[in-house]
Amino acid sequence: MSILIKNVLLGTAKTNILIEGKRFKAFGVPADTPAETVLEADGKAILPAFYNTHNHAAMSLLRGYADDMNLQSWLQDYIWPYEDTLTADDIERGSRLAVDEMIRSGSVFFNDMYFDIERTIDVVDKAGTRACIGITVMEMHSKAVEEQKRAFVEQWQDPTGGRIQLAIAPHAIYTVGTQKLISSAEWARKAGVKLHIHVSETAEEVRNCLKEHGTTPVRYLDSIGFLGPDVVAAHCVHLDEEEWDIMAERGVTVAHCPCSNMKLGSGRFPYELAIKSGARITLATDGCSSNNNLDLREEMKFAALLAKCTGDPTLLPAEMVFEWATRNGAEAFGIDAGVIAEGKVADCILVDLSDPRMTPNHHLVSNWVYAASSGCIRTVICDGKIVRN
Amino acid sequence: MSILIKNVLLGTAKTNILIEGKRFKAFGVPADTPAETVLEADGKAILPAFYNTHNHAAMSLLRGYADDMNLQSWLQDYIWPYEDTLTADDIERGSRLAVDEMIRSGSVFFNDMYFDIERTIDVVDKAGTRACIGITVMEMHSKAVEEQKRAFVEQWQDPTGGRIQLAIAPHAIYTVGTQKLISSAEWARKAGVKLHIHVSETAEEVRNCLKEHGTTPVRYLDSIGFLGPDVVAAHCVHLDEEEWDIMAERGVTVAHCPCSNMKLGSGRFPYELAIKSGARITLATDGCSSNNNLDLREEMKFAALLAKCTGDPTLLPAEMVFEWATRNGAEAFGIDAGVIAEGKVADCILVDLSDPRMTPNHHLVSNWVYAASSGCIRTVICDGKIVRN
Repeated sequence: MSILIKNVLLGTAKTNILIEGKRFKAFGVPADTPAETVLEADGKAILPAFYNTHNHAAMSLLRGYADDMNLQSWLQDYIWPYEDTLTADDIERGSRLAVDEMIRSGSVFFNDMYFDIERTIDVVDKAGTRACIGITVMEMHSKAVEEQKRAFVEQWQDPTGGRIQLAIAPHAIYTVGTQKLISSAEWARKAGVKLHIHVSETAEEVRNCLKEHGTTPVRYLDSIGFLGPDVVAAHCVHLDEEEWDIMAERGVTVAHCPCSNMKLGSGRFPYELAIKSGARITLATDGCSSNNNLDLREEMKFAALLAKCTGDPTLLPAEMVFEWATRNGAEAFGIDAGVIAEGKVADCILVDLSDPRMTPNHHLVSNWVYAASSGCIRTVICDGKIVRN
Repeated sequence: MSILIKNVLLGTAKTNILIEGKRFKAFGVPADTPAETVLEADGKAILPAFYNTHNHAAMSLLRGYADDMNLQSWLQDYIWPYEDTLTADDIERGSRLAVDEMIRSGSVFFNDMYFDIERTIDVVDKAGTRACIGITVMEMHSKAVEEQKRAFVEQWQDPTGGRIQLAIAPHAIYTVGTQKLISSAEWARKAGVKLHIHVSETAEEVRNCLKEHGTTPVRYLDSIGFLGPDVVAAHCVHLDEEEWDIMAERGVTVAHCPCSNMKLGSGRFPYELAIKSGARITLATDGCSSNNNLDLREEMKFAALLAKCTGDPTLLPAEMVFEWATRNGAEAFGIDAGVIAEGKVADCILVDLSDPRMTPNHHLVSNWVYAASSGCIRTVICDGKIVRN
């Protein structure tokens, strides 16, 4: 399998790019280089695709089902009762809808935490994209359910030859007790898979943790040996300076979800502290019921503007948030992609420069972050294969 | 001229809609009703178009030219020097780019404040959309320039038969002195046109006003008789409770620009006070150099999420911000549109419900505000005529 992308803008110059197998083989090749597929990309720019590092994909079925209400009522009166009615077929439909939306908006990967994961795995397999599928752990799950999950992980063989990985996903410190958090971490480390957890999403979570454990969520998780470079911590809205330093030292990946945090009134992500700490920050949409879409381009703009909003227009420049959404996400999940460079795995998109929102092109990344919409995307390539054109 | 829109979703039911001349003539007409143009709209919803109430359209040429920097450097080192090089031809190109982008993202009207307005008027005339074109007033303008402007307003005849109106646009209280503000208001009221001004965009503006006039911008403007139902005040980020009450009492229209305020670090719009006051709030993008697009759909989401961000997820629900961007904008400029109803002027868009972002359709307005993108727009109608299909 080979793809020749002709006359495409890479940075500030036009070039011809050859993809062979999964990888960018060469840049600046002759225009008549033989390839199985030739994409004429005059008037288009090539950019790395997005990596969505925290999602509940099948919740796309709950898009617009409950908005503009208090968190407790939202969860207890709407989201949980609706979720109780979901069948495995629904999960498949919801996952398919989500993956379709993600591809159209340039994401080739999502880090998921939900139920009936076999169905979601099947959807991703067929779509040709990537995912990290979380095995959800809740305190309320029975021993039988947990044994089933452990058997699943033990017998797991990736049907896609490398596009899907698993994670152990203890939901949060308020739904999983200390012993189960510890055993989840041991389980993940033994299986060699990621750990995926919600951390300090709301001020209430922090208050309750202080009451129950006498310390804050990050300190608590660190005290039980949970934190490490295999952990992906979603949200992290309410961390103090020292907690950020802990996250950086342990090599934890933070999945920042600006739209979800804003829409649920969870609070403003502490950009200053997060950036200063040097922790690896990635970008995510969270599930559709608190967003209500899966569009990482939009999420980049929300993050960059929310950072600046309180008074410092130099905070979180376009290039930095673009890295969060692309390179940092790929790195966090061990995907050798996230940048357009020779030898790297070819996960990329082609963007239409003739769209008014990409015109004029004083600064490609600025246009992509601040001005574009996912409607500017023309082609999506994942793992060296065209998944949308 | 007549248009039949067949099988279109209006609210929660499908119907056939007849547009005759400029107006919605009838709803629920037979599918074989004769019309010059028939739009099959099965799988699409009809929604009111957007009214963008504060813009500097030709600044689309500065999209991405200068980002992520402090306001003073942004203005003095980049924006003003670039603007000094702009010719009337540039203004025309920039206006055309802006109007094209606005139509694609569903806006049929913008309230402008810039230079070489004849060129912008010509662009709007040809595009078939609407605008309120501000005659910019600055303290530094010579008497000759001002007389030219006055002559222009006196001789003004709308070439479009009602789609374009003028405004007198004293730029701001820090660029126009008291006497000129007063004479601008008298001029506008004599000519029967709107007044368009920047108000309390930054905390610095308020501080300087306190120093110079001993009071805050809104109180100062009110004390000189400037405020009234013909005033459109852009930004209004730094108003206290009593100032909001003044705005409501005087019937001033507020043009809220969430993205611009966030990106420049101007501060968070005080949604609680603004809504409580009952003032007429509309939505706007500001110019492209501080946004960096002209997409009011995106602006709705930014406003709704910025409102909720600090802790109250019930603040500024989808339906309310949708009204700001549609009905309130139309009302503010005396355009008998902004809602889809019999007898109203037909300014509307058709939105593709098969787009994943509009699926499932639990709540059409929620999907439009929180989940959609302008890429979901299929058709734009202004003044009873198709301007994009």
